[in-house]
Amino acid sequence: MELAGIAQRIREKHGIPVNARDVGRMLAAALASEDIWRIVDLAGLPMLATCEGLQAFAEQGWVEFGGERVRLTEAGKRVAEALGIRPAQELRCPRCGGRGLELEPFRGLAQEFARLARNRPEASQEFDQGYVTEETTVARIALAFSRGDLAGKEVLVLGDDDLVSLAAALSRLPKRVAVLDVDPRIVDFLRQTAKEERLALDVYRHDLREPLPPELLRRFDTFFCDPTESFRGYLAFAHRGISALRGPGGAGYLGLTRLEASLTKWRQIQRALLEAGAAITDLFPNFHEYVNWPYIETMRAWSHLPVKRVPGKYEPWYRSALIRIELVEEARVENVRYSGDIFTDEEAATT
Amino acid sequence: MELAGIAQRIREKHGIPVNARDVGRMLAAALASEDIWRIVDLAGLPMLATCEGLQAFAEQGWVEFGGERVRLTEAGKRVAEALGIRPAQELRCPRCGGRGLELEPFRGLAQEFARLARNRPEASQEFDQGYVTEETTVARIALAFSRGDLAGKEVLVLGDDDLVSLAAALSRLPKRVAVLDVDPRIVDFLRQTAKEERLALDVYRHDLREPLPPELLRRFDTFFCDPTESFRGYLAFAHRGISALRGPGGAGYLGLTRLEASLTKWRQIQRALLEAGAAITDLFPNFHEYVNWPYIETMRAWSHLPVKRVPGKYEPWYRSALIRIELVEEARVENVRYSGDIFTDEEAATT
Repeated sequence: MELAGIAQRIREKHGIPVNARDVGRMLAAALASEDIWRIVDLAGLPMLATCEGLQAFAEQGWVEFGGERVRLTEAGKRVAEALGIRPAQELRCPRCGGRGLELEPFRGLAQEFARLARNRPEASQEFDQGYVTEETTVARIALAFSRGDLAGKEVLVLGDDDLVSLAAALSRLPKRVAVLDVDPRIVDFLRQTAKEERLALDVYRHDLREPLPPELLRRFDTFFCDPTESFRGYLAFAHRGISALRGPGGAGYLGLTRLEASLTKWRQIQRALLEAGAAITDLFPNFHEYVNWPYIETMRAWSHLPVKRVPGKYEPWYRSALIRIELVEEARVENVRYSGDIFTDEEAATT
Repeated sequence: MELAGIAQRIREKHGIPVNARDVGRMLAAALASEDIWRIVDLAGLPMLATCEGLQAFAEQGWVEFGGERVRLTEAGKRVAEALGIRPAQELRCPRCGGRGLELEPFRGLAQEFARLARNRPEASQEFDQGYVTEETTVARIALAFSRGDLAGKEVLVLGDDDLVSLAAALSRLPKRVAVLDVDPRIVDFLRQTAKEERLALDVYRHDLREPLPPELLRRFDTFFCDPTESFRGYLAFAHRGISALRGPGGAGYLGLTRLEASLTKWRQIQRALLEAGAAITDLFPNFHEYVNWPYIETMRAWSHLPVKRVPGKYEPWYRSALIRIELVEEARVENVRYSGDIFTDEEAATT
């Protein structure tokens, strides 16, 4: 079958595990939109795989690349119909944006946070940055509150270009908020803002490849972390968070994309999280929406795009899932040093 | 600490794994409501554990049982304040009920489904039944549609007091819908309705403890299943579904409660699902709302309730998560026969 052949081509050329159903998802995305960023988003697959799939579609005569658009041809429509493939449709609730959360009680926090975030450092490629929308950060805080992980709790944020620590401290709900980041700009911004706003925020400059400082081990109720998405890097960051938890009942919030992580990698990551002593309690796809970063044209996936258009800053296409885990037994993780490049693998797109 | 002591008491008396944080969740629930069913729901813990926790709270003088209410005392309020525990708050989006889904495109289906479901068989304790609200069934169909698991696909429903197969067939989207149920009333109802409405629905009478008929193995794109919640029973049912999938890219939708399954059991179940070759792609807590069944007063947990009130039929308190899994490699499951009681364990409440 044609879809299976395209899947095989992608696997062989890029080493990314995709199957015939996945290629069908690319076609469903191309049925739903002519915009390359929307197609990449809707397909929900490693970005390089979707780019390769679209090239293959073009060679089959199913799509044409014209100007900035990806246009389905009559042949493409016939193939989709023959295969029973329909245009992708999200059915996202217009009130909560698909997160299921009511943010009204956090409206004041959202306004204060927006005011303080105005002067945030821009996302830097050097540190694999790219931050989520302000609404996303507030939604993360709201979810943690609703799960009992914020009020009266000690909270650690590992890597914080999203400014989660700032929003958490601004809510005045946690007993304590600590934050680690490697980027001196973020560290300075958080320290300065905390001082001006009289927020209780402990800011550490720290490279997460290094072991956690001993005074942070087993001291927290809740952690937030948006790991880099190579398998090794993901686990390194997640294990840091888990090792900071006090014990059973402690919770972690982690981001994970489909655009830089295949479901094969998701499975590996999930097995490792469970292995470490946690259960997965929540997994909301597309919880996080990203603000477009200034290095779109130098990111790895750019040269692979079949049509090239720089998206607007607030034209979201890069989204990720939010995973909440909870320790059910003593954590089984080691606090070791990682060396070398733990940031890239064959599925990487934005590094 | 007192919460840890109560957790230990629950573990020793009931063999249910709970920790101090869990007992804090019971207190947060009791801060939020005086209604026993709402407390059980909000605590989000095995029901027998919450009942035992409330008894312990009463012995400490933190709550009083009066008439049909659970009343927090001044002492209880002081303890909560000292521990930094706040009233539980769900922050559920009022439009989508916390599911994140827009159901408007399925309004016609919802109406037709409601009409046909009017004459459904009542939930029977003999078959461990208890069905979800009509809105829940439609939401499940909508989610499967949005994930590309419905239109043009072959769909299998394993056990169907929720009438998911009927809603799926009514949508006229799948290529084929098949359904297995052990209850002759359900089988007859589905067959009769399918005939009257000219729906393409293959109805099998089948006990899920028995191996799947060979003609159903590796034939489907999607399965739905709401397993019994002992670990052994859960796996038995989930494995039947997985063994019916054609291969990688195939998806399964499974229910799982917190009220009859501790997070320790969740972790065991999740490990087994990953082991079988799947990744977890979505996990929405409280996706399913149940209509109260007629055997509330004879269910196992009834005698443990500290205050007894029969809830109205449409006064939802029993909810469950929806887990979507997707196969990323060939399934590793066996299609074996199960004997004996695979339905109950120490966390069971409604059997």
